[in-house]
Amino acid sequence: MPNRYAYLGPEGTFTEAALRALRPEAADAQLLPCAGVDAVFGAVRRGEAGAGVVPLENSVEGGVPTTMAELINGDPLLITAEVAVPVEFTLFARDGAAVGDVKRVATHPHALAQCRRWLSRHLPDAEMHTVSSTAAAAQSVAEPGSPYDAAICARIAGERYGLSALASGIGDRAEAATRFVQLSRPGPPPAPTGADRTSLVAFLSDDRPGALAELLDQFAVRGVNLTRLESRPTGDGLGRYCFCVDADGHVADAAVGEALMGLRRICTDVRFLGSYPRADETADLTPFLPARTTEADFQEAARWLEDIRAGRV
Amino acid sequence: MPNRYAYLGPEGTFTEAALRALRPEAADAQLLPCAGVDAVFGAVRRGEAGAGVVPLENSVEGGVPTTMAELINGDPLLITAEVAVPVEFTLFARDGAAVGDVKRVATHPHALAQCRRWLSRHLPDAEMHTVSSTAAAAQSVAEPGSPYDAAICARIAGERYGLSALASGIGDRAEAATRFVQLSRPGPPPAPTGADRTSLVAFLSDDRPGALAELLDQFAVRGVNLTRLESRPTGDGLGRYCFCVDADGHVADAAVGEALMGLRRICTDVRFLGSYPRADETADLTPFLPARTTEADFQEAARWLEDIRAGRV
Amino acid sequence: MPNRYAYLGPEGTFTEAALRALRPEAADAQLLPCAGVDAVFGAVRRGEAGAGVVPLENSVEGGVPTTMAELINGDPLLITAEVAVPVEFTLFARDGAAVGDVKRVATHPHALAQCRRWLSRHLPDAEMHTVSSTAAAAQSVAEPGSPYDAAICARIAGERYGLSALASGIGDRAEAATRFVQLSRPGPPPAPTGADRTSLVAFLSDDRPGALAELLDQFAVRGVNLTRLESRPTGDGLGRYCFCVDADGHVADAAVGEALMGLRRICTDVRFLGSYPRADETADLTPFLPARTTEADFQEAARWLEDIRAGRV
Amino acid sequence: MPNRYAYLGPEGTFTEAALRALRPEAADAQLLPCAGVDAVFGAVRRGEAGAGVVPLENSVEGGVPTTMAELINGDPLLITAEVAVPVEFTLFARDGAAVGDVKRVATHPHALAQCRRWLSRHLPDAEMHTVSSTAAAAQSVAEPGSPYDAAICARIAGERYGLSALASGIGDRAEAATRFVQLSRPGPPPAPTGADRTSLVAFLSDDRPGALAELLDQFAVRGVNLTRLESRPTGDGLGRYCFCVDADGHVADAAVGEALMGLRRICTDVRFLGSYPRADETADLTPFLPARTTEADFQEAARWLEDIRAGRV
Repeated sequence: MPNRYAYLGPEGTFTEAALRALRPEAADAQLLPCAGVDAVFGAVRRGEAGAGVVPLENSVEGGVPTTMAELINGDPLLITAEVAVPVEFTLFARDGAAVGDVKRVATHPHALAQCRRWLSRHLPDAEMHTVSSTAAAAQSVAEPGSPYDAAICARIAGERYGLSALASGIGDRAEAATRFVQLSRPGPPPAPTGADRTSLVAFLSDDRPGALAELLDQFAVRGVNLTRLESRPTGDGLGRYCFCVDADGHVADAAVGEALMGLRRICTDVRFLGSYPRADETADLTPFLPARTTEADFQEAARWLEDIRAGRV
Repeated sequence: MPNRYAYLGPEGTFTEAALRALRPEAADAQLLPCAGVDAVFGAVRRGEAGAGVVPLENSVEGGVPTTMAELINGDPLLITAEVAVPVEFTLFARDGAAVGDVKRVATHPHALAQCRRWLSRHLPDAEMHTVSSTAAAAQSVAEPGSPYDAAICARIAGERYGLSALASGIGDRAEAATRFVQLSRPGPPPAPTGADRTSLVAFLSDDRPGALAELLDQFAVRGVNLTRLESRPTGDGLGRYCFCVDADGHVADAAVGEALMGLRRICTDVRFLGSYPRADETADLTPFLPARTTEADFQEAARWLEDIRAGRV
Repeated sequence: MPNRYAYLGPEGTFTEAALRALRPEAADAQLLPCAGVDAVFGAVRRGEAGAGVVPLENSVEGGVPTTMAELINGDPLLITAEVAVPVEFTLFARDGAAVGDVKRVATHPHALAQCRRWLSRHLPDAEMHTVSSTAAAAQSVAEPGSPYDAAICARIAGERYGLSALASGIGDRAEAATRFVQLSRPGPPPAPTGADRTSLVAFLSDDRPGALAELLDQFAVRGVNLTRLESRPTGDGLGRYCFCVDADGHVADAAVGEALMGLRRICTDVRFLGSYPRADETADLTPFLPARTTEADFQEAARWLEDIRAGRV
Repeated sequence: MPNRYAYLGPEGTFTEAALRALRPEAADAQLLPCAGVDAVFGAVRRGEAGAGVVPLENSVEGGVPTTMAELINGDPLLITAEVAVPVEFTLFARDGAAVGDVKRVATHPHALAQCRRWLSRHLPDAEMHTVSSTAAAAQSVAEPGSPYDAAICARIAGERYGLSALASGIGDRAEAATRFVQLSRPGPPPAPTGADRTSLVAFLSDDRPGALAELLDQFAVRGVNLTRLESRPTGDGLGRYCFCVDADGHVADAAVGEALMGLRRICTDVRFLGSYPRADETADLTPFLPARTTEADFQEAARWLEDIRAGRV
């Protein structure tokens, strides 16, 4: 089903909003809400959907563990697009309820973590329950006989399930945002656009001192800017980490290609996660790049080397 | 209450096991179970407990977000001890139940994540509910009229709440472990033992290219080995991270002291999180240290410099 | 003889010009011309002169081997001042001679090397003879029955020995200059002026891979700018080098002091050659310094560390 | 004259010994002694000789300035072979003379520098004269009416000019050696042998802070070991240096090729000086190489990258 898009459901999640931003042309019939991040990966792997959308990292909570775990350890899928969605939380309840009535709140753990301050001020005595998504919380609150009085969720979810907003903008951080990625089965990456990002996971060699500094060096000497470096446990015991890296540029670029080959040599393992257009078209980091690291510079240097090897000094 | 110890409760958590390992002399009366990690921090900050114990990181899930957030952004507390506790998960239910009867399982999100494989094989259709701790799950299951049929928790919790074990060792990773830390109000760190660890958070300067490599360099040139480098979002928007660092050695050591001064100069901010005895007494990383980086080497170099400055060449 | 100054003679050398620039107050009676660089070192070591002046490096030929060898391997002397002298070469002969008459030219090997182009154009068939100094060449040409017809030397030398200038400005590089240093017996270095230089020799450890990069790092992490790095053979066989380093700053500065202690630890040996006022008062290199590396920044970081160690977090 | 070999003459120089070691098959008729290093370069450039041999560096005195200057600034020639020759100095005089009779000694400046200790002990009052080569010194002493009483030279030279040895092994360093190189007109380098060396000159960018560390990094990340790094003044004023580099490996190797492309990008200019078999077949430096830097590793990484770019993840 190449035209079907799996996403972290149910209907009304921030992920659905991300998917609609990435795929504005998609009709409702083509959207496949899934019960969990794992289910989205599964649907794409089995070909039940041509692509899937999941949250990757949040500006408050950091990387989304399940997504990271699937990308790192699961059967390979490639990231083929990304989008950043501002996260605005709203407290929704059934019609007629007031904030004072709220005793039991349902939401996703990430949402809970991001509304901690508001909750401790306005609902210090309410019981908090975590469910699989903010939309599921809204859905559950809407059910007759729900064990919950209110849900913290996206506006789209509250509205879709016919709830009333009690308070909006209740997140601790006004500028909170979540980065979502589109996953596809392995294949050639999307063509370079000139403003791309490359993601990968590097497993450093344990018995190789200074391995992390070496990893950074492999990018630095080619003038490749890193926009993210996140450690994740490998799962093999305390003190063992792998590193999720986002870098500016496309695997088709000479600079990125050379850096990847360098990692391949120094790491125990490298998993390529994809090259795709950056959500923010201009670089927000202004790195101190070694001189002359454009694609043209790399091509010129290659020609110069060819001349030397051929004796055309 | 200097002799009281707060910990992430309720009774029966892995945290209680960690606290008992750290403080074998503590009587039950001195233990203060708290409803959340935040509550432990609060009890110590307000002086209701002389120290507190919380989980810091897990070998499968990584850093514990709430603990990290409190250490990074909350009012300062110092880490004064650490312990690593093996994590073994058991499925507990009320007497008489069998695995086939389990429709609704309660546990902590981290435990859920770590038992995913076993659950998908043995309880593929069960509903999963996350609560504030594995012990709370056990407690809840033990209540008459509980909405849950079973809890995934530590053996100590299941036994304390009078439940029966249905299956043990159900974690995906046999060697899973969690690292717990003891928190104290600011003051002089525990005396060096010769096998210590120092923790800190470094906020890199945004407009300082190569800042992460510079951070690693400040440790490397003094021969200070890092045992952990974990990025955390600063909360100021996507793409902004700070770095939680664990290093071998004590802040009283010349090498660690000099490295910290170096960070102080190059970073926007550095928060010292404590120097304390390592849980594993021998180094498990064998770093490639610059020659002669013992305390004695640093003292000898200081004397040599003093001679030069005084004209005793 | 504390008020006597030894220098590379005979009278009329560029070194005499350097000495007069460094010590304008010195009377002629206090000047001790020596027959070689070694002799200057010897006179200072034995106390026959309070200080000595020798050439250290030339902008065309590089380091002066004998000076470097004495500084590296001889009994220790300290550099206590420096001066850069422009090098202008003139061809001098006895009265009445013309360029066409010149068959045998005497000069110092460095001068010869720096006038190669002019000589090959104007005196392609003349025989070149090297003597111990350009002034010695002038002196020799002035002797009756001299085997030489002309000398390449400084104007001051030709005039002092009563010769006539045949051609001036004959050096290949108009901007050539030589850096001279003043040597003193070991003792406290001159007080910091705010624009100082520190010189040293570092012997890297053979069995320490990446030792040169480590050396550079020890300066870089403290924001100490290097203005010169010159390899010299250690004399222990092909492929074995030590490195002569000039750095901005004074050994009394925290940054330079810390860097020196670092070298002391990682090197087989470090010889301190002195801290002294820079000849060029403003920095001609604009290095990319780590943030906040002023003396005040170092002091602030030291106070911060003291607070942490004392528990004043 | 492709079969003719120019060398730094006259007959009897250490350079002739080096040439005979490099070209044992050459007949006497094919050897072209030249009056200076410049003349050797000129003869090869003009095609009067197919190759030339000159000294490059000495284990006591360091780089030979004229050779370095020609390689750096002259019309390009390539190094196509190297050989290391032990340097043993002998004092030769005309028949019947004794050490006590020697008043005036002739030799090359490098030889003079390397026999300083012996001379100061045994001939403290003798006058030292420097000439263009040690063989020229022997030749001159052999002439009737020579101004010199003795020559310091190679045994081969003293014997060729019919002199008698007064003292042998008079060098300060028993293990002294000189490295000679064979020069050829530009063309494809000799085929890789598996134990090769690559020489080049790098002109760092003035306005590029940390440029020297970047240069070292370009080699380090590809696991290319440097065996020599010698600074030379660019001639453009004090404080301006270029760096002569010898590295293990051949320009045809992936690692060396990539490193050279890196230098090409970050340097103002790079001059390739040649790839040629190492004189010492086994590495005398045991570098700390990044893991997996053999040619096979580079090829494997290239195939892996090709797979990724083609979508064969």
